[in-house]
Amino acid sequence: MRGGNLSGSEGHLLESGLVVPVCRTRKPSSFSPPKPKFFTVRRSLAIRAMSGSPAVSLKEKEGTPKGSMGSLISTDPPKGTRDFPPEDMRLRTWLFNNFREVSRLFSFEEVDFPLVESEELYTRKAGEEIVGQLYNFEDKGGRKVALRPELTPSLARLVLQKGRAQSYPLKWFAIGQCWRYERMTRGRRREHYQWNMDIIGVPGVEAEAELLSAIVTFFTKLGITSNDVGIKVSNRKVLQAVLEKFNIPVDSFPAVCVIVDKLEKLPREEIEGELDKAGVPSNAVEGILKALSLKSFDDLEALIGAQSGAVAELKQLFALAEGYGIQDWLHFDASVVRGLAYYTGTVFEGFDKDKKLRAICGGGRYDRLLSTYGGQDTPACGFGFGDAVIVELLKEKKLLPVLPHVVDDVVMALEDSLRVPAAGVAARLRSKGRVVELVIEKGKKMKWVFKHCDTLKAKRLVLLGSTEWDQGKVNVKDLDAREQTLKTVDELIEST
Amino acid sequence: MRGGNLSGSEGHLLESGLVVPVCRTRKPSSFSPPKPKFFTVRRSLAIRAMSGSPAVSLKEKEGTPKGSMGSLISTDPPKGTRDFPPEDMRLRTWLFNNFREVSRLFSFEEVDFPLVESEELYTRKAGEEIVGQLYNFEDKGGRKVALRPELTPSLARLVLQKGRAQSYPLKWFAIGQCWRYERMTRGRRREHYQWNMDIIGVPGVEAEAELLSAIVTFFTKLGITSNDVGIKVSNRKVLQAVLEKFNIPVDSFPAVCVIVDKLEKLPREEIEGELDKAGVPSNAVEGILKALSLKSFDDLEALIGAQSGAVAELKQLFALAEGYGIQDWLHFDASVVRGLAYYTGTVFEGFDKDKKLRAICGGGRYDRLLSTYGGQDTPACGFGFGDAVIVELLKEKKLLPVLPHVVDDVVMALEDSLRVPAAGVAARLRSKGRVVELVIEKGKKMKWVFKHCDTLKAKRLVLLGSTEWDQGKVNVKDLDAREQTLKTVDELIEST
Repeated sequence: MRGGNLSGSEGHLLESGLVVPVCRTRKPSSFSPPKPKFFTVRRSLAIRAMSGSPAVSLKEKEGTPKGSMGSLISTDPPKGTRDFPPEDMRLRTWLFNNFREVSRLFSFEEVDFPLVESEELYTRKAGEEIVGQLYNFEDKGGRKVALRPELTPSLARLVLQKGRAQSYPLKWFAIGQCWRYERMTRGRRREHYQWNMDIIGVPGVEAEAELLSAIVTFFTKLGITSNDVGIKVSNRKVLQAVLEKFNIPVDSFPAVCVIVDKLEKLPREEIEGELDKAGVPSNAVEGILKALSLKSFDDLEALIGAQSGAVAELKQLFALAEGYGIQDWLHFDASVVRGLAYYTGTVFEGFDKDKKLRAICGGGRYDRLLSTYGGQDTPACGFGFGDAVIVELLKEKKLLPVLPHVVDDVVMALEDSLRVPAAGVAARLRSKGRVVELVIEKGKKMKWVFKHCDTLKAKRLVLLGSTEWDQGKVNVKDLDAREQTLKTVDELIEST
Repeated sequence: MRGGNLSGSEGHLLESGLVVPVCRTRKPSSFSPPKPKFFTVRRSLAIRAMSGSPAVSLKEKEGTPKGSMGSLISTDPPKGTRDFPPEDMRLRTWLFNNFREVSRLFSFEEVDFPLVESEELYTRKAGEEIVGQLYNFEDKGGRKVALRPELTPSLARLVLQKGRAQSYPLKWFAIGQCWRYERMTRGRRREHYQWNMDIIGVPGVEAEAELLSAIVTFFTKLGITSNDVGIKVSNRKVLQAVLEKFNIPVDSFPAVCVIVDKLEKLPREEIEGELDKAGVPSNAVEGILKALSLKSFDDLEALIGAQSGAVAELKQLFALAEGYGIQDWLHFDASVVRGLAYYTGTVFEGFDKDKKLRAICGGGRYDRLLSTYGGQDTPACGFGFGDAVIVELLKEKKLLPVLPHVVDDVVMALEDSLRVPAAGVAARLRSKGRVVELVIEKGKKMKWVFKHCDTLKAKRLVLLGSTEWDQGKVNVKDLDAREQTLKTVDELIEST
């Protein structure tokens, strides 16, 4: 059985990752914000042809209402893209920090690649969805380029570039934005972020086992259990063995994998038609489908024998999983193929056990990617883990963290004449590592300040009033203990 | 005098940030890496038309050398872009963490925006370099879009979008990649990262003072002193007062600022020609140049009087700087104008005192940007700080950090039969927060392992050999103390 309602199947590029909007953890504030005078926001598609912004005190032209320069621009981000206001950014940062922390525990090193890459890096001919949805364009120099749809080809390019200058194995991770463009848009997102971990230079399934253990470590860190999530594991050599049985030409293999991956999405006749075009005779289709339905190693061995290597590799991988203590998370399932042409061995796919969501992550072994780029064969494997489905899952399981903006001290001058020393107090507290909100607005009342402290979850409020300041002191309110004391600035800093 | 050899002047977009390559801290390794067999890297511009990567064990076509599929792709990143291999990424991460930590101390919240924005967000008519070098293109839906050249317009768009749903002031920061495209390329970079901090909703120079204090806090954190770096500060109202004197039309102001910013780069006649086109009579040019040469508040007051607000604002800003203890870093210098059309008040620019580098950072007040987008006037100020010039400066001052990849434990099975328990040991150490390099390569000798530990700066080496393992023990080598002990796995974990 295939991975829930997975509608795409791009291996490293999770289609799913591009589709589901990041859930917002914003919670209603108990503090009603001051109504700024300067907003009357309406949405509009027009934009004024701007001549720049004249300085404030220059005389306004007659007939132009002061402060409003014309019709409003579209304030939405471009179709299929996201803004990250603070509440969404906190969630993204939290997620990325978890990606980083897990990668670090496994001794992986972070890398990154250009957002714009040459189109040629992606134009494989196997009919992958990822190629059909390339966000490509011609740059001003006439070069065919694309916003990267996935990170693996860039990684392969960098590995080729560095060549002998590096010691193997490479254990690299990356967290990067990936793009796609569909001509027929269905309100789907055009960008997502993806966490990749890759091991270059290790031919054994010990590498895949490390990757799977990292994924499980990540889930566990977030409070997700093997009751919530599983990882289906298979090996493309299963399909390869079946194709060999039917004497199907070697060149067809990547395309056949991509077609077979669409089994749950397309009508059977369409699949058969595509397989026919790829050189697969109709009498082989049954054999392929039968192989894909297998769920046990014994049945697999009975069908393809042990000579393909698939059975031995799978058994070794599951044995290592026992060592890592992640065996409850893994499920052998021959239906997992993944939709990228370049996989050659192990393939896997994380899924939610409620089968409500698309694939959470996916990856596999791609021992021939570097040679398709003109380098020498290099054993390699990796996975992609998008930023969208995981957030959906956390929401579903009520595991989304509460991530408030947290401030240590709010510092405020009660009179304008004390703004200079107030800045000094803020600077000294910050030099001690305190997160300090200095009140720089004017004319704010105490009621507003206390509400502001509440919104910011501030621990202390430091007030500068002239009576105390003339005695060299400030008023320190401990907002948790609800205590108030007069302190010199030195005492305040020392007590920090 | 203008800012050293600054050749561009885009305010929030530091031209400089796009030009100087990030210096690599890579140091020669004492460990000679094993020569992988699978690389013979040559550079080539051709790429094979790929049909995908056939599985490893399938028969090779005759005449194709095993493992090499054709001519090598170009392994360089696209023109003007960068890869971030581990050593460069560590530097980037270190720099960004410092940006984040300083922003946090000032109680700013992180935000981000789409990398692709509507072209209209940037097409101001003031002749800015940033608009002339827009990395724009038509997407597949025929929309005119651009890779963002700066972050401020996106921020303004998001502020307009959120409207009354937020409480002011907003204190936001962002770290994002920005792009440009020159038709006439001079080997300059097309992308850089930029740290922005912006305050929305505060009209007083208390906001600018916070920003300047944040910048100085950042410099100080990196070991840079006011002997190394200064920040020139001026106010566009100075120029505005001069233009008013000569009855120059209000609409010309943004364009005049952009032209005047080019004073050091273009011949005097060209500047005068451009000013003439912008409606500035030749008799006004002398007055403008005189105003720009001022370096003291007294001279400024003598020239333009106090009524423009410029003098009062500048004096208040420098008084606040004393409060923050950053007065040594600031220099009033009327020649600072910045090259973006949207600034309306304070403008500033960080420079190295040796005058070897371009501007390090720049910013100012832009109270009218939201109204040019069709919203209501909103007081705002901010700065942009690129990732390139600062690295050049750190290199120059020998302040670049040494940032090795650091590992706690290297775990290795001495026999293949112990790979499963070795995985278990690694998993348990990682669950305690240890960074663990598990040796997953096969056939490695002890000599290699010790070199590997040395390269990774590992603290311990944990070896699983069958003799000890049969007694339930592992061999633990403390690599700093050069001690070796036998421990049970429980003892190992407890001693961690």
